[in-house]
Amino acid sequence: MKRLLITGAAGNLGKILREGLKGYADVLRLSDIAPMDPAGPGEEVVPCDLSDRAAVHELTKDCDGIIHLGGISIEAAFDDLLQANFLGTYNLYEGARKNGKPRILFASSNHAIGFHKRTTKLDDKSELRPDSLYGVTKCYGEALASYYYDKFDVETVSLRIGSCFEKPRDRRMLSTWMSPRDFISLMKAVFDAPMTGHLVMYGVSNNRTKWWSNDHADLIGWQPQDSSDIFREEIEAAFPAEDRHDPAVIYQGGGFAAKGHFED
Amino acid sequence: MKRLLITGAAGNLGKILREGLKGYADVLRLSDIAPMDPAGPGEEVVPCDLSDRAAVHELTKDCDGIIHLGGISIEAAFDDLLQANFLGTYNLYEGARKNGKPRILFASSNHAIGFHKRTTKLDDKSELRPDSLYGVTKCYGEALASYYYDKFDVETVSLRIGSCFEKPRDRRMLSTWMSPRDFISLMKAVFDAPMTGHLVMYGVSNNRTKWWSNDHADLIGWQPQDSSDIFREEIEAAFPAEDRHDPAVIYQGGGFAAKGHFED
Amino acid sequence: MKRLLITGAAGNLGKILREGLKGYADVLRLSDIAPMDPAGPGEEVVPCDLSDRAAVHELTKDCDGIIHLGGISIEAAFDDLLQANFLGTYNLYEGARKNGKPRILFASSNHAIGFHKRTTKLDDKSELRPDSLYGVTKCYGEALASYYYDKFDVETVSLRIGSCFEKPRDRRMLSTWMSPRDFISLMKAVFDAPMTGHLVMYGVSNNRTKWWSNDHADLIGWQPQDSSDIFREEIEAAFPAEDRHDPAVIYQGGGFAAKGHFED
Amino acid sequence: MKRLLITGAAGNLGKILREGLKGYADVLRLSDIAPMDPAGPGEEVVPCDLSDRAAVHELTKDCDGIIHLGGISIEAAFDDLLQANFLGTYNLYEGARKNGKPRILFASSNHAIGFHKRTTKLDDKSELRPDSLYGVTKCYGEALASYYYDKFDVETVSLRIGSCFEKPRDRRMLSTWMSPRDFISLMKAVFDAPMTGHLVMYGVSNNRTKWWSNDHADLIGWQPQDSSDIFREEIEAAFPAEDRHDPAVIYQGGGFAAKGHFED
Amino acid sequence: MKRLLITGAAGNLGKILREGLKGYADVLRLSDIAPMDPAGPGEEVVPCDLSDRAAVHELTKDCDGIIHLGGISIEAAFDDLLQANFLGTYNLYEGARKNGKPRILFASSNHAIGFHKRTTKLDDKSELRPDSLYGVTKCYGEALASYYYDKFDVETVSLRIGSCFEKPRDRRMLSTWMSPRDFISLMKAVFDAPMTGHLVMYGVSNNRTKWWSNDHADLIGWQPQDSSDIFREEIEAAFPAEDRHDPAVIYQGGGFAAKGHFED
Amino acid sequence: MKRLLITGAAGNLGKILREGLKGYADVLRLSDIAPMDPAGPGEEVVPCDLSDRAAVHELTKDCDGIIHLGGISIEAAFDDLLQANFLGTYNLYEGARKNGKPRILFASSNHAIGFHKRTTKLDDKSELRPDSLYGVTKCYGEALASYYYDKFDVETVSLRIGSCFEKPRDRRMLSTWMSPRDFISLMKAVFDAPMTGHLVMYGVSNNRTKWWSNDHADLIGWQPQDSSDIFREEIEAAFPAEDRHDPAVIYQGGGFAAKGHFED
Repeated sequence: MKRLLITGAAGNLGKILREGLKGYADVLRLSDIAPMDPAGPGEEVVPCDLSDRAAVHELTKDCDGIIHLGGISIEAAFDDLLQANFLGTYNLYEGARKNGKPRILFASSNHAIGFHKRTTKLDDKSELRPDSLYGVTKCYGEALASYYYDKFDVETVSLRIGSCFEKPRDRRMLSTWMSPRDFISLMKAVFDAPMTGHLVMYGVSNNRTKWWSNDHADLIGWQPQDSSDIFREEIEAAFPAEDRHDPAVIYQGGGFAAKGHFED
Repeated sequence: MKRLLITGAAGNLGKILREGLKGYADVLRLSDIAPMDPAGPGEEVVPCDLSDRAAVHELTKDCDGIIHLGGISIEAAFDDLLQANFLGTYNLYEGARKNGKPRILFASSNHAIGFHKRTTKLDDKSELRPDSLYGVTKCYGEALASYYYDKFDVETVSLRIGSCFEKPRDRRMLSTWMSPRDFISLMKAVFDAPMTGHLVMYGVSNNRTKWWSNDHADLIGWQPQDSSDIFREEIEAAFPAEDRHDPAVIYQGGGFAAKGHFED
Repeated sequence: MKRLLITGAAGNLGKILREGLKGYADVLRLSDIAPMDPAGPGEEVVPCDLSDRAAVHELTKDCDGIIHLGGISIEAAFDDLLQANFLGTYNLYEGARKNGKPRILFASSNHAIGFHKRTTKLDDKSELRPDSLYGVTKCYGEALASYYYDKFDVETVSLRIGSCFEKPRDRRMLSTWMSPRDFISLMKAVFDAPMTGHLVMYGVSNNRTKWWSNDHADLIGWQPQDSSDIFREEIEAAFPAEDRHDPAVIYQGGGFAAKGHFED
Repeated sequence: MKRLLITGAAGNLGKILREGLKGYADVLRLSDIAPMDPAGPGEEVVPCDLSDRAAVHELTKDCDGIIHLGGISIEAAFDDLLQANFLGTYNLYEGARKNGKPRILFASSNHAIGFHKRTTKLDDKSELRPDSLYGVTKCYGEALASYYYDKFDVETVSLRIGSCFEKPRDRRMLSTWMSPRDFISLMKAVFDAPMTGHLVMYGVSNNRTKWWSNDHADLIGWQPQDSSDIFREEIEAAFPAEDRHDPAVIYQGGGFAAKGHFED
Repeated sequence: MKRLLITGAAGNLGKILREGLKGYADVLRLSDIAPMDPAGPGEEVVPCDLSDRAAVHELTKDCDGIIHLGGISIEAAFDDLLQANFLGTYNLYEGARKNGKPRILFASSNHAIGFHKRTTKLDDKSELRPDSLYGVTKCYGEALASYYYDKFDVETVSLRIGSCFEKPRDRRMLSTWMSPRDFISLMKAVFDAPMTGHLVMYGVSNNRTKWWSNDHADLIGWQPQDSSDIFREEIEAAFPAEDRHDPAVIYQGGGFAAKGHFED
Repeated sequence: MKRLLITGAAGNLGKILREGLKGYADVLRLSDIAPMDPAGPGEEVVPCDLSDRAAVHELTKDCDGIIHLGGISIEAAFDDLLQANFLGTYNLYEGARKNGKPRILFASSNHAIGFHKRTTKLDDKSELRPDSLYGVTKCYGEALASYYYDKFDVETVSLRIGSCFEKPRDRRMLSTWMSPRDFISLMKAVFDAPMTGHLVMYGVSNNRTKWWSNDHADLIGWQPQDSSDIFREEIEAAFPAEDRHDPAVIYQGGGFAAKGHFED
């Protein structure tokens, strides 16, 4: 792979991949609206506002693959999501379509299905039940990806990411955690695969507690190596027991499902 | 029912309902961005741009039900869809949430699933496969409706409308046609039902050829009365036989699935 | 058919069948713990307490079919259900097993699945979700019927009866109503069928609103003829609109799902 | 349609269609290995042994559609089936492939699924369970049809025919009967449809007792008009009651499932 | 966890847990109708007849969790099951409901699904097919658990236990065996889980041969560690090969499915 | 096991088993139409043309199990397949039926489902979609096996073999590879199992990339030990990257799906 574009490169996930995918492509093109560290060897740093169509068009030139982490990744005002997530993702797909149709990893989210209960095992065919406006933008992104594959042959893996940090940050993340190492190996599996079409997958490590069946991840040969269980004792000591009548505990989306409207 | 709001009242579907629902509610509040006929008895005419949040907030006051036909109903430039369909539908749901949570009929579309082949029978659980940017806005609307029900208890029937005209306008519509009479009786079924939660249904008459299984329509007691078959001879005489290698024939979305990008 | 036993013959359903099945068998053997009218032509009246095993053994002799309506058919104290429904149904199956294995119609109930919401369409494979202790006894009866067929070749149709009266008695029954005429024709279909194994079916007329898919009823050739819709206007006039936040409206079991523990 | 080929035209089904499809195509090309009546107006009579590849190649020239009823339609010695059904059907598909790829109606049979019990409702996705060597040849034919569509774009409707006679001939046929009129209208629906791909359907009238769900028949707009029920009384009078322990009653394939090996 | 009640504590499973759960709760309250060893540190020994409602009410006071192993765990006379399993389990749920609604582990059994064949892989949605009156009592218990959760918010894990002994005792148990160690870890997973609702799971180790898919066990984070395979050679040497025409080999329930009525 | 027959013993798979099953049965009866090495200890070498019914009848005498690898295992002229695969497999099943009904391992093939895309995960219930005439013969063989079990109680495991070689021979085989060691252990699992009925399974190792879910393989206790991943680097170095628009890459059947008709 010659050039791999990562949008949202200044964020948490972007930094993990900037480090972890070093050497995977000849050039990592890193882009964000926020400040980024200067380009190192094998890197290009291209600041870009995803709502600027012409800029995104330039950004997506000459890429063999795109990891689209950009946009807002928490609950936000709808008008902000409209620019960053609705318009931004459209601009990105249009850029890809016009610039050689590289495969796209779309960072979807567990919040696209966050209103399912924790006692329900989901898979890639489960009903969408977004838990937030943010989650709705991810449903939109998956629909857009489906459309661009069906009509324009732009391939996407829509990855419903759980919680990707160095380690889980609360009890819920014992179930939703994806280790940075697993995230990196997953990115390689996505771009190494000979063919993906539009696949929906869950981004989660091999944790002991789990709500998502990811069996079809072996279609592209991904096998997570890590488990949150090594942090269990520490996390359970640090956080109080969960109350099963708390919506943040009942629903898979946790706090996103529990809280009211962003702007209220 | 005291007051029923119809958005998009100046359009084809809006006119059908303005006429057909006369007397169903004490007041029909009719709204559009386009010119409408002046209010008759039992009518209020309220021009409104759905992308204007404050105006939509006013519009949705004191309603017992909302039929949301507003926004763009054909393939269009994304920037236009962004205002009319993404922002407009959000504004409408916010208005409903803040103004007593009336039940909403959301005019979704067969174009949300238009990339399925005509040889596949679909139901309400079938995978979303939008055939156009317009279709993507309908996937978004259904996701938003799911969210507003799960979190805010705003009920919606997301109706994937086929083709609602006086009679079918081409051979494809022999399968997708919904008669105005069936559309009207469906609206009454939606608002008469004691409870809907968020239901996804197909808006199609009892045609002889059909791609959508609507069995669960009896949850709210809707039984279409009409069939396109009385127009079959006329339509088949007027339009040439369909070519099974034409994408407009292969896919359920017809011409929407067949045509390229709107702006190309 | 020479002799058809009906238990619970003094009850509402029993009376409907006593009248409706006149002449269907050479002899109707009618049994109840409550007083019954004296035997007419082609009838035998055999009082019996279903919790008395020896009596039930006698009762079930020389029958070609059994319609088991007996036991308690409303929510009741567990100790009463223990005798009438748990023990009584066991005694009946033992009687059948030892007396030539006639086919059994087991009067199960919608209350075996009453905690499903009204916005969910069910079929014979749907998860059991009883709404009352009474409903639990019906889940038990269906399991017992499955066992007696698998091990002893005693056939049963477990019929989840909706509401069988001359006409619907409230708004909920517009969906759950089974007309006496349809009930009678169903009984004939059950005993005319060459083979039933253990089938689970719903006992409901062809109402306009419906929560249960009964497609496989044509395995035994039953087609309901009636619809509650002819009573809709009358019922809607007589009963106030339903409140969608009332558990009796949310759940299919209606009042059974809504009320607390019988003995509290 | 200019020319429609019917193989097996001398058989029971062939005669029904020869009469029923008069005028549907400009020319009916009628073929069989057995003697046929001489060609009338709009007919061509072409004797042909389906196991003769060159002859079949000629036979299939210049056709716009093929109804393949030819071959052996009862249980037979394997060596006979090998020629007539295995080789014959292959020759027919090769002829079609090389001669313009007309759509094919393949006369499959309920005996492809005849080892399912009568208490199981089947649809087009149900597991194949042939009840005879004859049934195995039909499974083969459906697989061949699938292959020719996937690789060569030759369309087929594989029709699992029940029992097509003027009227039912025994009690089992009350469930499996397809009226000649329904068979004829089905043929028209198959060839009128704009697109079929490879569809599996059941050929059965709208009987009161039924084991097969044919919901997707409306993909091509077929609605059977007849029911065996008008013959029920007559048939039940003429044939003894069925014994539910008889394999011919237990299994959908009837006598085919019950009898041993053809050559024993 | 302060106090964990174990009913049936004098039995095989009870003894395993009495030993294995030492220290898991501050107090293990051990109950049985049969004699038990005197209480050690961290133990309370409370003899109780489960059919005595008042006694069970006392027994279930002040518990944070209940492991309900009590009742009859083999095929038995119905009248005995009526007291011990039907009435006893009801009494226990009533006690739980009135005493703070602790979570319950209900010891269901593979005999609730024992009439499925060994060549069928089951999961938690598979049809109930009890193989014995004992199995019927377990179907009843699962229905009761469903009811108490839906109406009263009493949570249950219904565990369909295979065969829990130190090692497998015959060839069938090579497939159904659950090691004591896995049973103990499962109990901890059940009571450590933040939320269970009503879950149905299979209690079986990670054996090489297996009939039950337990994928959703990771909803509560249980991963069995043991396999019967280390005993395979020993068991196969000790027991004759299984005869595939023996009902005890055909059906998952083994001998329970094979034997006739208990009292015959 | 006293005598195990292996047909196709001169082929690649046959040689693997001749070596690998040494000692598993008292006698391995090895048969092929092609020359074989002379019989060693515990071996019988019986040349046989599978299309010769009498010879096959002799061949199948006195066997406790049959591994049917014989016939043509690549795409071929239909007339050759007719003899070797259609007639040959029938002869073998007839031989088995008449000679004591030993269990049969039928070497089916991934080419029975080869027209599914690589982005679809299949299991044993997936629709048949053969990719070649060879694949069609395997669909036929599975249907024949189903028939012989349902009617004659001849058990079969139909094994859809991926690619069994010492190591993968191209990039596709990284997904389809079954190691000889896993193949051998699978054969033992098949014949050690107490009961199989007719099971369909996939013959594939525990590769990192995989298209087939084989969960139910634990019904007979098979767990593959090997993975193609140890050869990945070597294979990827030796073969060019796959083109996702190449039918040989799009479809699971690889080259079989991509190539045209054998005889063109």
